[in-house]
This record gives sequence, C-alpha cells and structure tokens, in this order.
Amino acid sequence: MTNWGDCLTTMRTGAPLVQNITNYVSMNIMANTMLAAGASPAMVHANEEAADFAAIAQALTVNIGTLSEPWVQSMVEAATVMNDNAKPWVLDPVATGATTFRSSTAAQLLALKPTIIKGNASEIMALSGATAAGKGVDAVHGVDAAEAHATALAQANTAVVVVTGPVDFITDGQTSYRVSNGDALMPRITALGCSLGGIISAFAATQPPLQAAVAAVTYFGLAGELAAEASTGPGSFQPAFLDALYNITPEIMSECAQVELI
Amino acid sequence: MTNWGDCLTTMRTGAPLVQNITNYVSMNIMANTMLAAGASPAMVHANEEAADFAAIAQALTVNIGTLSEPWVQSMVEAATVMNDNAKPWVLDPVATGATTFRSSTAAQLLALKPTIIKGNASEIMALSGATAAGKGVDAVHGVDAAEAHATALAQANTAVVVVTGPVDFITDGQTSYRVSNGDALMPRITALGCSLGGIISAFAATQPPLQAAVAAVTYFGLAGELAAEASTGPGSFQPAFLDALYNITPEIMSECAQVELI
Amino acid sequence: MTNWGDCLTTMRTGAPLVQNITNYVSMNIMANTMLAAGASPAMVHANEEAADFAAIAQALTVNIGTLSEPWVQSMVEAATVMNDNAKPWVLDPVATGATTFRSSTAAQLLALKPTIIKGNASEIMALSGATAAGKGVDAVHGVDAAEAHATALAQANTAVVVVTGPVDFITDGQTSYRVSNGDALMPRITALGCSLGGIISAFAATQPPLQAAVAAVTYFGLAGELAAEASTGPGSFQPAFLDALYNITPEIMSECAQVELI
Repeated sequence: MTNWGDCLTTMRTGAPLVQNITNYVSMNIMANTMLAAGASPAMVHANEEAADFAAIAQALTVNIGTLSEPWVQSMVEAATVMNDNAKPWVLDPVATGATTFRSSTAAQLLALKPTIIKGNASEIMALSGATAAGKGVDAVHGVDAAEAHATALAQANTAVVVVTGPVDFITDGQTSYRVSNGDALMPRITALGCSLGGIISAFAATQPPLQAAVAAVTYFGLAGELAAEASTGPGSFQPAFLDALYNITPEIMSECAQVELI
Repeated sequence: MTNWGDCLTTMRTGAPLVQNITNYVSMNIMANTMLAAGASPAMVHANEEAADFAAIAQALTVNIGTLSEPWVQSMVEAATVMNDNAKPWVLDPVATGATTFRSSTAAQLLALKPTIIKGNASEIMALSGATAAGKGVDAVHGVDAAEAHATALAQANTAVVVVTGPVDFITDGQTSYRVSNGDALMPRITALGCSLGGIISAFAATQPPLQAAVAAVTYFGLAGELAAEASTGPGSFQPAFLDALYNITPEIMSECAQVELI
Repeated sequence: MTNWGDCLTTMRTGAPLVQNITNYVSMNIMANTMLAAGASPAMVHANEEAADFAAIAQALTVNIGTLSEPWVQSMVEAATVMNDNAKPWVLDPVATGATTFRSSTAAQLLALKPTIIKGNASEIMALSGATAAGKGVDAVHGVDAAEAHATALAQANTAVVVVTGPVDFITDGQTSYRVSNGDALMPRITALGCSLGGIISAFAATQPPLQAAVAAVTYFGLAGELAAEASTGPGSFQPAFLDALYNITPEIMSECAQVELI
C-alpha cells in the first residue's frame, strides 16, 4: 500500500508552480489552500498569456465555474501546451449539465484528454453522458450512482476520475479507491471543491496521477476533519481548514488516511 | 405580527437555488453567507448561460458593484426571465450616482421592475432621482433622509424597498418597518451589504417580498450582533458572522428580532 | 525622525477614497485590509467608468495581477486622470517578467510615471530591466539583490520604489529606508502583497509619497507580527491580521516601528 504521508512530502518538496484557470468565486480560497499546502499557485487566465504561462507551469487546473468565451479559449490553449509537454492538468467540470454552454464546454475540454477529472456525482454523470442535470453547483446524486459512470469515463479517456462526496471514489478505470476522510461541513463552504482541484494539480505535478489524486483527496478530507473539530460553524471552519492544511505532517497523514483499495 | 423565526424556517426548508449576478469583490462572501444560511447559491453571469440558468433558479440577485457591458446584458436577460415566470429578483444598485455608467445602468434595471430594491441611503436617494452622489460605495446620508424617497420609489415601481443603515427601513409603499438589529462593525467588512442582497433573494424565493425582506434584514443584523460579541475586530468578525448565520435558530430569531411596524 | 504613529493618524483622519484596479484574487482581501485600516476602498475598473471614478478618488492603485486588454486601457485612463490632477497612484507590477504580456504592460504603465512602485525583488529587477524572470508571483531573488536596481528605478522615474521581502527596502532615489516589521507567514496568504499596494495608496492620499510608503509598509508588517503571535497557521492569521490593522493605535505603531534610515 502506498505511504500517503510520503506523497505529501513529495508534493511539498517539489513546491510546484501550478497555473489555475478557475472561477472568480474560488480564486482566493484556491490560492490560499495551495499556499497553505506548500504549492506555488498562479491564477493566470488571460488569452494574451495563458499559453505562455503554461510553458513554465508544472501543472494546470481548469475549472469551468464562471465561464466566458475568451476564458474557454485560454483553457484550450493552456491545456494543449500541457499535453504537448506531457505535463498534467486537471479538469473540474463545475455544474456541467446545468446549461448548454457548460455542457458543451465540458465536452470540448474532455476531448483534450485531461490527466485527471474531478467532479461531484452529478457532474461526473452529466460528463459521462448519463441523463443527469445538477441543481446548480450542488450534487443531487450519491457517489454510488456515479461509480460505474466514473469507471467508464476513466477508461474511455485514459484519465483518472475523482467523484467527490461523503465517501470519495477515485479510479483510473482499472484500479479504484474509496476515501472516507472528510466532514459534512465541507459543502457549506463555497469553492472548497474547486480548491481541491488545485490541490490535486499540485500533487499531480510531482507524482503519478492516480496516486496524486488519492493522496490529495485524502489530505484535503483529513484537513476537513481537523477543521471541523476546531470550529463551531462554516465560518470558523475556514481558517481552521487552512491551518490544518499547513500543519498536517506526513506522519499525521499516514496515520489518519482512510483509504480503501477496492 | 409575523413570527420572524417561521420565516427563517420557511427559507431553510425551501433551500432555494438562487442565481446571483454580482460583483467580483462579493462573490465569495455572498456565496458563503447564503450557504451558511441554508440556501443554494449559484454565481452565473455569462451571456451564454445567464438566461438559461434563470429558468431553473428560484430567485435572482442583480448587483451592479463591478459592471461591464456584457454583464449588464446578462442582468437584463436574467431579470426578464424572472419577470416572465413571476419569480422574484432583487436589485442592489451599488454606488449608483457615483458615475454616469452606474446611474444609467441602475435606471435601466429599475425599469425592469425588480421585486425588491436594496441600497444604502445614498444609493436609494440617487435611484429615486434625489440629487445625491455617494462617496464610492459608502453611504454619506442617514437612513432618515432616505425614508420618504424610499416610499415614493416603492410606490412608483410596485416594489419593496430596503434602506440599510444603523436602523434599516423597509417599505412596500404602504406598510413600513424599521429593523434595529445590526452592529457598527458591519460596514467595516467589504461586500457584507452585497451579501445581504443574496440573503434577501433566498428569503424572497420562499415567501412574500415584504415579509422576506424584513425577515432577511433582521436575520442578517442579528447575526452581526452575535458576531460582534464574539470578535475583536473586522477580521474575527467574519468567521463569527458565518457561524452565527449557520447557528441562529428560529427560536433565537423570534426572540431577538428588533422589528418595528411603523 | 518621522513619528510613524502620526502618519497612521493622518491616514485615518483623511479616510481617503481610494480607487483600486486590481486582480480578482486580491479584490476582497484588499478591500477588507483597507476598510480595517480606516480607508474607503472602491474597486472600479470598467472602461465605462474608470476615468470618471478617478476624478473623485483621492488615490489609485494599479495592480496587474490578472490582466486583460480592456483593463489595461482602464488602468492607463485612470492613471492619466490622477497625473492630470496631481493625485498619487501606486503601481504593483505583479509577476512582471513571467510573460511578455505582463512585461509590456508593466513597461507601458511605468512610462506613465507612477508616484510609487511596489514589488518583490524579482518584480523590481524585471521592471528595471535586469534579466530576472520571476517564478510566477513569488519572488526568487533576495531584497539585497534588488536595492541598486530599485534606486536606479526611482531616480529614472522620479518615483518612490518599495521592494518587499523579509526586510523591506524603500527609496526615492536619494533617501532610503529599511523596514524590519513583518512575519514569515505573510507570503503564505494570497494577495497580501497586493493588499499592501492598497494600503500604500491610502497613506499616499494623505501625505508625501516617501513618508507614506514607509509608514504603510511598517504598519502592514507590524500587523503581520501581531497576527502571527495570535495564530496557528495561515488560516487563523487572516482574521488576526485584519483585527490587528483595525486595532493598532498610533502609539503602538510609534513604539513598534522597526524603521532604519540608511
């Protein structure tokens, strides 16, 4: 079994420069989670420089939370640079299925073959072509319902697929994991799911994608558990969560990881 | 007299999906206040999808804090969908009067007949045509000075009008209320007023507009009081405020509401 | 020697209206730091109103963190209004050197003669024409390496130049200071450096630029020290930092300022 604490050490030692093209709601907290974790985030999305910056970034996060045509173009260009240089990128198809614009953009980005795809059950089902329209950005389906779709999606796209929920499901189409770390308060903080996308990118910049995704999801969920213990609501949860990301040691991570190989 | 705690229960039970077209400064905290309160916020403003999303949203917030032409178009389209489907929408004319662009956009949106209009005294006076130029986003007039303008604005537009300040004034042109809940630290946190707009939308999605506006303003002000008691400045106020929104029960709300029917 | 506490009093008494054209990541925290400090920030960047608003603002911050062509145009127009009315403006050339778009925009803005230029060592070196490419937004050079470049930049542009780092260096080309206030946690919070730009603008709106820059940097660093004492990581640091900005008195500032005239 992988030593999950070692995965955290690997990420922190690399301190990877990660480019994030993400929605306005998430930019600040995604950058803060990545800095707390030990990565070097850069929020660079302008057409005039997205591809240039991708050339120096070690990984890329593409999140479609607040879209516009010029940003979609930047996403395509930056992802192409990552592909051309065999560097990893993560797709977060936020609320795909809720509008035609979102679904068609997610499909366009999926065709570019992301290294890792992360979404809630409704998003992964919508992306895989199952008839599933999300209620805005919040999942209306359970993770269980999405597992088969996730596996098919992984196989069809040679990608790692992460389905987030009370118990997360992560698969590369052959090997699958369930991660039980996490807390029920987490969906009550906006853009925390988006931030996980950035953390996955940071891990993926420094290690193989399946291991990276499982380690990132575990680390993030564990920080959520520690934060929930130290907080009295979603407000006090946030500073406690960033503190936990910063203070979790590889030893704590190895000890508290609740990862099941299926 | 209305049982204000019941209004909170009604909103939380509905857990309404609310679309928000709001400024960049407020997006994160508005979404977080709405999640903490128990609503389901979605920040969707792109031209390609604003109207599509309005079709599934239960209420809409339109905030002109950081404007651009494409966003104004999205605001108009989404508001029109709400009107066509008899769903409520809230206009927050941030800093109207400060620039010609703001004033003309606010007038354009006002003509679309928002269900509820919320602003500080300077904004409401500027919107009602009184000669009042705000100092940026902060009010330079007292609520008292704006009450007659608010009543006239409500009558002329068949809208509920909310004037925020140390004591809030809320009217539909016939019936009026004053709400004394709140704390002096609240204007020291950016976009807290914007966030109130989202909370009003969440209440309005599930109950009549005048009742919704009074209940939302009371709930928000009460959370401010509880947060101020638990904090030592505007920094610690923020997590305490979100915690309070999350932890206020209908019983606390009924007990602590300081609402006066005029 | 200047009484640094008096500089804080001067800024708070003025409560200046400061326009900020800044990146998406920083907007919320920059506004919150400025409100906590006692200034009146306004985030106004749209082409349709940037110049109009500059006419009423007392100072302007221009931060190139997330660029686009229309915003560059707004930056140029607003800066021109400031120059034409002899009002101060601050340039923060975030990550200049990392992409061609950034470098050319920074050069274009530099040609407009900012009152104060603030950057980390890598940014100041890149702006001054030294061959230095930053690693995204984080400095890879020490402050020492940038001091001569900063002095030359100040002389060539009749500007005050601030180089941020563990010990900050501030110069107008003739007189130079080092400020030792600050804490190692500060670079672990995103957009805190950007926020400093807004605080410098607030001070510059009410006093001469060199004194304003030194006082602002000292005040900001001191708040960081107090916040670090009260926190257990970068998450709890943030509310503690805003509380410190709010609670630092002129007496505390005079007593704890670690400013060295070189």
